[in-house]
Formats: sequence, structure tokens, C-alpha cells
Amino acid sequence: MIKQKRQSNLRIIPLGGLGEVGRNMMLLDYQGRILIIDVGFRMPEEDMPGVDFIIPNIEYLKGKEKNVLGAVFTHGHYDHIGAVPYLIEKIWHRNLPFFASPLTRGIILKRQDDFPQQPKLNINLVKDGSKIKLGPFFVEFFRQNHNIPDNLGLFIETPIGNILHTSDFKFDQNPVNDLPTNFQKLNEIGKRKILLLLSDSTGAEEEGHSLSEKEISKNLEEIFKYAPGRIIAATFASLINRIQQIITLSEKYGRKVCLEGYSMKTNVGISKTLGYIKAKRDTFIKGKEVNNYPDSKITILGTGAQGEAEAVLMRIATREHPFIKIKKGDTVIFSSSVIPGNERTVQIMKDEILRQGARVFHYKMMDIHAGGHAKKEELKEMIEIMKPKFFLPIHGQYSMLVSHAELAKEMGWPEKNVIVAENGDIINLTQNRIFIEKEKVPSNYVMIDGLGIGDVGEVVLRDRQMLAKDGMFVIVVRKTGKVKGSPDIISRGFVYLRESKELLRDTRKRVIGIIEKATGAGGAVNWSYIKDEIRNKIGQFLFSRTERRPMILPVVIEV
Amino acid sequence: MIKQKRQSNLRIIPLGGLGEVGRNMMLLDYQGRILIIDVGFRMPEEDMPGVDFIIPNIEYLKGKEKNVLGAVFTHGHYDHIGAVPYLIEKIWHRNLPFFASPLTRGIILKRQDDFPQQPKLNINLVKDGSKIKLGPFFVEFFRQNHNIPDNLGLFIETPIGNILHTSDFKFDQNPVNDLPTNFQKLNEIGKRKILLLLSDSTGAEEEGHSLSEKEISKNLEEIFKYAPGRIIAATFASLINRIQQIITLSEKYGRKVCLEGYSMKTNVGISKTLGYIKAKRDTFIKGKEVNNYPDSKITILGTGAQGEAEAVLMRIATREHPFIKIKKGDTVIFSSSVIPGNERTVQIMKDEILRQGARVFHYKMMDIHAGGHAKKEELKEMIEIMKPKFFLPIHGQYSMLVSHAELAKEMGWPEKNVIVAENGDIINLTQNRIFIEKEKVPSNYVMIDGLGIGDVGEVVLRDRQMLAKDGMFVIVVRKTGKVKGSPDIISRGFVYLRESKELLRDTRKRVIGIIEKATGAGGAVNWSYIKDEIRNKIGQFLFSRTERRPMILPVVIEV
Repeated sequence: MIKQKRQSNLRIIPLGGLGEVGRNMMLLDYQGRILIIDVGFRMPEEDMPGVDFIIPNIEYLKGKEKNVLGAVFTHGHYDHIGAVPYLIEKIWHRNLPFFASPLTRGIILKRQDDFPQQPKLNINLVKDGSKIKLGPFFVEFFRQNHNIPDNLGLFIETPIGNILHTSDFKFDQNPVNDLPTNFQKLNEIGKRKILLLLSDSTGAEEEGHSLSEKEISKNLEEIFKYAPGRIIAATFASLINRIQQIITLSEKYGRKVCLEGYSMKTNVGISKTLGYIKAKRDTFIKGKEVNNYPDSKITILGTGAQGEAEAVLMRIATREHPFIKIKKGDTVIFSSSVIPGNERTVQIMKDEILRQGARVFHYKMMDIHAGGHAKKEELKEMIEIMKPKFFLPIHGQYSMLVSHAELAKEMGWPEKNVIVAENGDIINLTQNRIFIEKEKVPSNYVMIDGLGIGDVGEVVLRDRQMLAKDGMFVIVVRKTGKVKGSPDIISRGFVYLRESKELLRDTRKRVIGIIEKATGAGGAVNWSYIKDEIRNKIGQFLFSRTERRPMILPVVIEV
Repeated sequence: MIKQKRQSNLRIIPLGGLGEVGRNMMLLDYQGRILIIDVGFRMPEEDMPGVDFIIPNIEYLKGKEKNVLGAVFTHGHYDHIGAVPYLIEKIWHRNLPFFASPLTRGIILKRQDDFPQQPKLNINLVKDGSKIKLGPFFVEFFRQNHNIPDNLGLFIETPIGNILHTSDFKFDQNPVNDLPTNFQKLNEIGKRKILLLLSDSTGAEEEGHSLSEKEISKNLEEIFKYAPGRIIAATFASLINRIQQIITLSEKYGRKVCLEGYSMKTNVGISKTLGYIKAKRDTFIKGKEVNNYPDSKITILGTGAQGEAEAVLMRIATREHPFIKIKKGDTVIFSSSVIPGNERTVQIMKDEILRQGARVFHYKMMDIHAGGHAKKEELKEMIEIMKPKFFLPIHGQYSMLVSHAELAKEMGWPEKNVIVAENGDIINLTQNRIFIEKEKVPSNYVMIDGLGIGDVGEVVLRDRQMLAKDGMFVIVVRKTGKVKGSPDIISRGFVYLRESKELLRDTRKRVIGIIEKATGAGGAVNWSYIKDEIRNKIGQFLFSRTERRPMILPVVIEV
């Protein structure tokens, strides 16, 4: 059943990306007709062991599938497109149109190769200046600089007024592999009476202006100029522009480039095919060919600057890479920032590489990485250019949204025109007012793990956390009415059983005691009571002896 | 058996703190007579679930207990004293003398209260200028600035030559609650012909000079001046000088101070008793009294700026604190840096506090925290002052040690006189040479968890990691020779069993198949083979269906 009130307003519904970094997805809903902007995922938190990633909750669209007019994608980073294969079937209807720039489209389609059973996507190409009409929405795409090419901001005419969605962006007058920011165009758009600005907040806590990619190139070149041996450069596979810089510098200094790692090879492949990465025909060599050249003529380009367990750099650092071993004279470049939470792992990896004799350069030592996100000065400029009536910070942790909102207020925007909203909020927009509705839309985490049959639920996750903390302790009891032999105990992650014989013996004695007491009187035996008793009493006993609380699992076996 | 060669050299053996931050412990061994410097612990890594902390491995001292001359402590931080209660019994002998400054001694003794069964420690008081003789070692203590009072560097005369151990330190001309750095004394020591300098490397990757605590005070005062309501300040309980600043500012602005959290109360208690924290008699109020004063007259001072799960600030953020709830008008100050690895948790906590309406100040927004460690400029100055013949960077991750060593080399120290060593290395020092011996001393992690019966070993830890990732799957099989009923399955942290009936049914079928095949032929049944088969085949089957790899535990029950 579709329940829909007539609205004379526009509802903006962020399903992800507001109050977090990643998982960007937003709905514009006008009179029940819905436009989707981005369908991204995010990486799990540390306390979600085994979870692969988190996708938006689209329960709100249930029963409204036919009213989804289409989805527009701003750019090809996974936090903007990554959830497509997990959600597409749920909102699929014949000819549901997608709109994306050529590179974004290429990355989405390449990903779909892993999901052959899914419907074939219908992705229309758009580019700077493209205009499309979807129901009541008229969308004009415009180029925005970021750290991947083909990033598009959205100018959206709606019956309520004009909305400007910046996409992720930074202003860059000297980009690499991209055109400089087109301020003329931005100024022109700014004159169109923007009712609401939705602007990227990822850099809103950082003072100043983001670094130009040109600066990065200059610093990287200093390393290339003096590196005596091989250069091993690690960055994100999605940082297409950085990858281009490293390729260009390698060519300039006569180095062959060996691409390592699946995602690096894939992304460079797509980008080359579509003309977004330019390289000479003989620049790339295969891994096995690395030894055919002098060390000073080799660049190895791979993923893993974040310490990802399976990535190239980690495998090199842990000496597990099949043919790349660090040696004295190597120069290792970490050309990416460190994602919060990964600092320890990156430190450990860096130490390991230093121990093996390489020199290490990372972004804290010199500017060999720039984020893709506008900092305070640029964010102010964007607000200044668009002069929106209302302002809603998007994309970022809550503290970033707050910081971005503060900026607008400091610039003179009235408090009531600046809204800090979060995932699941329904932002109600009219020509004269913006506010958050009382009711919320479901926006909790949907976790994907393995093939995702029945996504990882809260219960499974809580169990994993508990198992991780103090392990588990299974006690198998035979349902014979009387005790026959001693109960079997299986334990993992608790204590090393071979060294804890006494503890086991005492535990067995206690279990037998519990059973004898409960079954001794004769009559019906309440096995569920016995299980509770074992769980509680043995739990207390083990804690008193070890101060650990393993998960206790009593199992009663019919014999 | 004590095996000991005659040496005409000094052996320096770091058991912790070199190649890591924390767990500082070092031995000086001259002809088998051993001096201990510090006995610290460190916090576990993320991939060590359930581990409380990590202590040094002191296997090297086994059998040499009687040759331990004594232990000197540089200062009262847990990474320098924290392992005392876990190791003291292993090296205890009658009258084993400890040497520590009054505050350090107070903190060590207070901690021992939790370990009433242990021998009473014999801690001799030392202070700036104290001189002691321990066998062949003559130790002179000198004041060094850090972020806890009563920090002492060590000038050690040995038969081989003079050694200078800086302790953790920074140079501060305008400290709070402490005297400024005594450069005159340092210069005087520098003239004594230092053979070897052991210097703190924690800040060796940071450019410039550390901030003076005076600067921090100035910035904190800006917050105090304008805060409209309560101030909730969080810092480390061990940052005694910062705690003093917040108390002093509270008094200046007419605020009462409510201390929250066990370690904060304890540390302030010790420090006040010993005269290291100064406060007016009526400054402190109890938690329950907070509501007796206007909000603008209240400072709440607690731990938890690192997002520690049990600390005050986290309990406030998660609305679990019994009587402190965040309200609009509150100002929350995070006056500490974020320890690598804690960034995500701190971000989440910060967001939660902002959502509840408080203003938040943290060290990235303004300088309201200074580290306690000298940065590059100060480290160079220390090397310059001491002009050691040999240089060994101590205290820090491997990358910090390398960076510190580079500094000395850039200053002209010859490569062979600068040694980067790690935990477990035996550094052999003579008047003309320093080198690392081939043989190493055990220095692997010793993990403490709960009461620590049989410390957490590698096996237990690996099991926990595996359990955390994909959970576990116990299959109970009856040893009847023939299959009787279906095997019992217990699983946690894998899939939600109630929603996975089909998967369970198929698994049971397969288990029965495996057993029937193995027992069908008659004759002796190889149950250990059946267990292997179940582990492998069911493991593969579950992976093919879920792409998860739970720990499979087949249990064969005698009936």
C-alpha cells in the first residue's frame, strides 16, 4: 500500500552520509515522486568484526518502487556507488534510469561483473552541462574538482525552488589530469536563485584551503628525482588523479610502472580505456618483468597505504608478497591520508618496511597527499558564490556538519535557515521555510558479510564481540537422567586448556553437582533450568577464578 | 644455573619501549650485575581482544634474580611503572631496592593497594641531585620537564663510561606547576664526557619545538572566560600538570571542581597529599553537590578524552552517567591528544556530545593540549648539549627511533656511532665501540587478561580473532557407531540460526553423510578422521553458501 499525502513541499531524505563519512545516499521526494542521489556504502567500524561493509537502509522505498524516477550519481567512488549491487534488485523496475558520467558509469558496470545474476543496468551518460528531466525534477550537471575525474555537481530545479548539490569537491586551480575549477560557471549558477545549498562537509573542520594537486606533484617529483632504487608507491585505487601523477613522473624519470593488486589494475584499466589515464604504450610492465630492469628504472604502484590486510603494501611489508621483497635502496611512498582508526596498522606497517631497509615517505613528512575535500576557506567561497536562502551541510561526521553550519552562521546566515540534519531525518523544504519533521525514516546500518544471506544482524554482531572478548566455553551434558562420565567441555579463546587442567577439573565437578542436585529428587527433570544454572553458576565460578567472562553454552544431548 | 662471561663491556638490554610506545623497561648489565630502569606496561593493540595490557618479558632475569642490584624509576606514568605488580614477585629478593621520586613512589605504592598479597616494596626516595651507588653503577638523578611532576633523568657512571638517560622529556621555559628546564645543570652534565646518550624519541617525527604548558593555559583560559554554563574537561588522569591548570583556572573564574572517575580521584588524591597539586580547601565538591551551584560555577574534571569505554566522558556521552547529563550551554574540553587507533571512538563520542547540545573544544581546533615529548628542535638541542660519543634513541615506534637517529647523523654523528636497536637486542658498549650482539633476549609480548592465570597466549588470542571474524559452529556427534537422530549444532556469531533453517538442515544432512560413509564399512571407526572430515567438508560447505568461515568444532560424545 502506498500512503502518500499531497505535499506543497519538497522532502529531502538522507539515508546515509549525514553523521558519518561514506554510505552517501539521498532522496528528493516531491508529491511521492522520488529522485535518488548516489547509492554508496561504507566500511565497518572496529567493533563490527567480520562485517564487510555497511549499506543504506532503503525500507522507506518499500512499496514506492514504481515512484522512483531514477538515480543520479555524482562520481565513481564506492562511498557514492558501492551499494548499487546490494540494493538494485530491491528498487528495480523496468527501465529505471541511472545517470552517470562516463568514468562513473564504467566503474559501476565493472563492479556489476561480480553480480552476473542481476538485471542489466540502464546507465545514461551525462557530462558537464548535461540536462535531464525526471518527473518534477530538472537536473543540470556541472563539473566539480575532486580527486577522481568526471565528478559532477547537481543543479536541480524543483517546483519548490532550486537546489544545489556540490557532490564531494574541492577548488583546484592547478589540478592534475583535470580542468581547473570553472568559477565562471559556478558564478553563473549562483545567480539562478538557489533556495537550498547542500554542500560537502568532509573538510569543514580543517582550516585554510586544500592543497592543489600541482603541489603534490612537485613534492612527489622531489622523491622521484633522488630515489636511488625502486619506488614503491601506495595509494587508494580510487585516486585516479594521483595514479596519473605517479605514472607521469615515472615516465619523466624513465621508470617502468608495474601495477600490483586487483583493484589497482581494474581501476587503471577502466580509466585507461575511457581515456582518463594517459600513459605511453610501453610504460606498464608485468610483475614478473620487474627484475629485467635496473632498480632505478622501476616504479611499483599498488594499494595498501591504509594498511589493508590483503593489499599489496601489507603483503610486501609482511614479506608475503610472491615476488616483491623490500631491499635497501627502495623508496616507499604512502600517498594517501590515514583513515581514522587505521593509524595503528599503518604505523606497524611503516615500521616493518623501515626495518627491512627502505626509506619511507608519508604525508606527515611532506605534502605528498591532498584530500579531495574543500576546507573552510573553499567552503565559505562556495556559500558565498551560491548565496542560498537555506543551507544544509551534507557528507560528514556530525562534528563536521556542525562545523560547516557554524561557518554559514558566522557568514551571516540566520540560525533558522541553517539546518544540521542526520540520516533518516525528513527535511521539509518550502519556499519560506526549512525544518526537520518529527517522524523519521529507518536509516540504521544494514551490514553485509560474505554473501549476505540474512545480513549480519545485531544478535550475530553482539555474539562476535562477546566471543572476541573472552572466548567461549561449551559444556555438553547427556540427558540420561543420571550423570554418566564427566561432562565434555570445549573452549576457545578463553584460557589455554592444556595449561588449565585444574580449572577444568573443578568446573566439571561443579557441573556434575548442579545436575545431581536438579535430578536427584526424581520426577520430571527441568533441563532448561539446568541449562540456566550451568550458565549462571559456571559463569560466576570461571569469573571468580580468571576474571574473564567467556560465553557459556550448555548443550544437553539426547542419548 | 647462572651462566655469565666476564665482560669488559656494558650490556644494555631494552626489554620494552624500543619499537613501541609504552612498556618501557631497560637493563644495564655489567659483569652480570644488573640495574633495572623502569618497569612499565602498554595497552593492547586492536587485534588483541580482551587483553588488558602487555608487560615486558623478563625471562632474561631468570636465575639472575640475586644479581639484580635494584630498579630506578624515571617518573610515575604507567608506561614506566605499570608492570611492577605483575613482575615484582618474579624478581623479588630480600631488600631489592627501588628508587623513585616522591610522586612516582606515591603512585607505585597506591597501585600496590590492589595487590595486597605481594611483598611490601622498599622504595627509596630520590630527587633532583640525589646520588646513589648500586654495585658498579653510580646514578645521579636530575630534574626533567614532562607533563607529570617529579620526572627524573639519569646520569649513570659505569666502569665503561658515562651514560645519560633522558627519561621522557621536553624543554619547557614556562611550565605550569613545575620549574623551567634547568639548562645550566644540563650543560654542566654535558661537560662530564658522555659516552652514550639514551634519548626519548616519541616526538622525533614532529617538526619544531613542543608547546609550552603556558600556551595551553592561555588557550584554556579563553574557554573559561566565555563558557556560559558548565565546563566538562576531560584529560588523562596522569597529566597532573594539566589537571592543575584546570583547577587553577576554575578557581580564578569562581568555579567549583567536581572530580569524576576512580583514576582521576586517586591521582589527584596522591598528588594533593604529596603537595604536587595545589587547590583551595573549598574548591572541590562532590558529584551530588553539582546541582547546588549555578552551571556557570561548575567544572567537572574527569577521564575519558580517549574514548575509553568505562571512563567518565564516555558514560556522559552515552547518557549512562548516573547524574551528569549533557545540556545546552555545556562546554566540553578534550584536553589530550588522541592516541593512534582511538580516533574513531573519539570521533563518535564527540559527535554524540554535540548532538546533545554542548560546545566541544579539542586539540585540533586550538592548542589545548601539548604532548610531553621533545620535538625535533629540542632533541637536537639535547644531543648538542650532551655531545655523546655514541647515540641510542629510546622510547618510540621504530619509525621514531629511525627519525631520531637520522637527526643525529644530520648533525654530524658518524653512522657507526648511532645505533637503532629494538626490544630484546643486546647492545654491547665499550669505550670505543657500540654494536648489537647477534644473540637476542626474549622480548615478546606477555599479555595480561583478567587475573592473568597463564597469561593470554598466542593460541587463545588467535582463537579470539577467529571467533570475532565469523563466529563458531559446534557440531556434536554421538559415538554410537551408527547415526542416531540428527547431530546437534550450536553456533554463535555466524548466522542468525532462526533465520537459517535451510542452511542448518543441509549441514546436518552432510554431517550424517560423512559419518555414514566413514562408519558404513564396519570395523574400527576412526573418529579423529571423522572429526577432520567434518571440519574440512562442513567448513567448505558453509563457505560456499555464506562466504564466511566460522570456527568449526566437531565434538564426538561417548554415549
